[in-house]
Amino acid sequence: MSAQVQDDRLARAAWSRVVEPGDEVAGALVAAVGAVEAIAWLGACVASGTVSAPLPGVDGAAIARLQRSVACWAPRWAGLDAERDLERVAAIGGRVVVPGDGDWPARLDDLGRSAPLCLWQRGPADLAVLLTRAVAVIGARACTAYGERVAADLAAGVAEAGWTVVSGGAYGIDAVAHRAALGEPARTVAVLAGGLDRPYPAGNVRLLGAIVEQGGALVSEVPPGAVPSRSRFLQRNRVIAAASAAVVVVEAAWRSGALNTAGHAAGLLRPVGAVPGPVTSAASAGCHRLLREGHAVCVTDADEVLELAGGAPADETAANEAATVPVDRLDPTTRRVLESLPLRSGVTVQALTRPAGLPAPVVLAGLGRLELAGLARQEGDRWCRSTQGAHHARGPERRSPSSGEGGDTG
Amino acid sequence: MSAQVQDDRLARAAWSRVVEPGDEVAGALVAAVGAVEAIAWLGACVASGTVSAPLPGVDGAAIARLQRSVACWAPRWAGLDAERDLERVAAIGGRVVVPGDGDWPARLDDLGRSAPLCLWQRGPADLAVLLTRAVAVIGARACTAYGERVAADLAAGVAEAGWTVVSGGAYGIDAVAHRAALGEPARTVAVLAGGLDRPYPAGNVRLLGAIVEQGGALVSEVPPGAVPSRSRFLQRNRVIAAASAAVVVVEAAWRSGALNTAGHAAGLLRPVGAVPGPVTSAASAGCHRLLREGHAVCVTDADEVLELAGGAPADETAANEAATVPVDRLDPTTRRVLESLPLRSGVTVQALTRPAGLPAPVVLAGLGRLELAGLARQEGDRWCRSTQGAHHARGPERRSPSSGEGGDTG
Repeated sequence: MSAQVQDDRLARAAWSRVVEPGDEVAGALVAAVGAVEAIAWLGACVASGTVSAPLPGVDGAAIARLQRSVACWAPRWAGLDAERDLERVAAIGGRVVVPGDGDWPARLDDLGRSAPLCLWQRGPADLAVLLTRAVAVIGARACTAYGERVAADLAAGVAEAGWTVVSGGAYGIDAVAHRAALGEPARTVAVLAGGLDRPYPAGNVRLLGAIVEQGGALVSEVPPGAVPSRSRFLQRNRVIAAASAAVVVVEAAWRSGALNTAGHAAGLLRPVGAVPGPVTSAASAGCHRLLREGHAVCVTDADEVLELAGGAPADETAANEAATVPVDRLDPTTRRVLESLPLRSGVTVQALTRPAGLPAPVVLAGLGRLELAGLARQEGDRWCRSTQGAHHARGPERRSPSSGEGGDTG
Repeated sequence: MSAQVQDDRLARAAWSRVVEPGDEVAGALVAAVGAVEAIAWLGACVASGTVSAPLPGVDGAAIARLQRSVACWAPRWAGLDAERDLERVAAIGGRVVVPGDGDWPARLDDLGRSAPLCLWQRGPADLAVLLTRAVAVIGARACTAYGERVAADLAAGVAEAGWTVVSGGAYGIDAVAHRAALGEPARTVAVLAGGLDRPYPAGNVRLLGAIVEQGGALVSEVPPGAVPSRSRFLQRNRVIAAASAAVVVVEAAWRSGALNTAGHAAGLLRPVGAVPGPVTSAASAGCHRLLREGHAVCVTDADEVLELAGGAPADETAANEAATVPVDRLDPTTRRVLESLPLRSGVTVQALTRPAGLPAPVVLAGLGRLELAGLARQEGDRWCRSTQGAHHARGPERRSPSSGEGGDTG
């Protein structure tokens, strides 16, 4: 590679091939002197076989501390050609996005020195726009039919609400989440661990293509040709977490990469959600672990996911409360009066004092409230139940043991 | 009822018929002057038609404040006969346990003024012993096969560990929990909402009988003949919570009596556990609600239940960690070297520096660690993978994309 690289984009593209993802020393160096100066300096070090090349604004002691890193980077200098890499990615409809570009997703800056030096992107989408409101939906490759169903429901709901679904493009939960989000245009981003010219896994090539066609994006911080190694998957997970406002784990084994992503999210102060599942399912063990250890909030539908991400009001509880039946809203005393009322025959107020264990004036007041609620009615001097409110009422309608344990009391 | 009751046991038995469960005014009155004095005073009030009967050690203003309560209690005075109630319960092999008895379960005193004034008990068990180490396993009557399975597993595990399973004797989760605990003698207690001579529900009569035969106990705070009303079920739930060191909800609908029990437990500072289930199951919605709102800890097996109750070490995580495969324990650098090693052919150290992105000395050190772990071996000047450790290793063993995304990384 020529040492005369003048372009920040080209220099960052070059750095993305020299380093492993998440290299904080490279991140610090580029932040300190700029990508162009830094890559030129690395070239000088390689050419001279030392790390003693001068670096403007950096003192000798700091340069000396770079020795070990230079030894890691140097083996990849030979054959480095960022322009060719850009051509390769352009040939598949891609480009490089760098900090300072209008479409650079600002969330990634939360990673600090381990932020990607650039993002290789396929698809015309504006990442900054796409990731303004984005939730990661991730999970096991070896998922169950249950996990697939839930992932599809969550991702579809998130996309319908105008949010972007971020995932890793893998088999299982990732693929289901991407696919469900394709129901809306431009609503999903796959963060890959390898080069964009190596869509991985092979079985998801069509899905990954569809993401691009539907206005979504495939992104990676490694250049074309780079293989998706284990460590790159783990580093990729930090990008998924950083790119999203919240991370939701749908299914995960006790030890799972999804937990690694959740850990990155926690480190970035991103809220983490976990979907519960049967305790008999090993595919949910990691989710239960997150819940049990307090690392995640329990989420069960798209509304809860959006609430987690800060995108929706916590209105479900209210909605459920609104479905409360009248008998549930009665105060305890009035409820005791209701329970004391025979189902068919009418009784006097005095006759109710004993079963209700209440004095006559209190019984009478309770009967009045029940009458207003359509649950009791008066016939002469006797009171009986009214069926008017009965179709609303759950739980015991009679005092007999056979119905005393209502749906709400057991 | 005669006003000359001299016996605390009889007086408390009488009070248990006069009041509704959880009557804090009655609790305070009995605590202040004793059950004998209090019931005699109530009799005097009823006889005189006032609440102005003198009460030793209680001033007139305090007595006046009892007016409303007396009006609630008085309707039940007629026909009150605690001796007959004791005979009725004795006829079915029962008795009354009161505070001060050696077998009074001290946990119930945590309820303060709303503590039961007495407990009607069937079965010879010593409640104080039985409830020293006790966990409530409760849940929906309308449970699923999943809930039944989990409840049975949890209750059996709790009982095998020498703990008592407390529940409400209802259909569904309660019945499954009691039944599973019957695998061990004297390991389950059913807290009923009605009188012990009215075993409820009818379909569980044989189960409730088996609990007694197996050395467990049926208890209730209401006297023989009392019907299990809705409010008594809700009050019964507070006794279940108070009697147990922890409360575990196995399945519960969004609105469920089990949540009421969990609420009582929280008020008593008892830990609450909730078993997760499919989010697609309405029978788990209440459990997820508890988890989501932070009212419960996620529990998935009997060990976690016992840990919740303070009965077992948190050793599961350790056990799971111990199952960690060797490749997971490698430091990142050594892992990178491993990933760079071809699966079949051998390569020189120098040839590894580029794919690994590491200088030769670091690669060499990593190869040494891999050799010790049985994951690499040297043949002449070339290194290759060793299959010796391969059966331990999960995740990617090759650098090819087709295996790059291992089970732990996706």
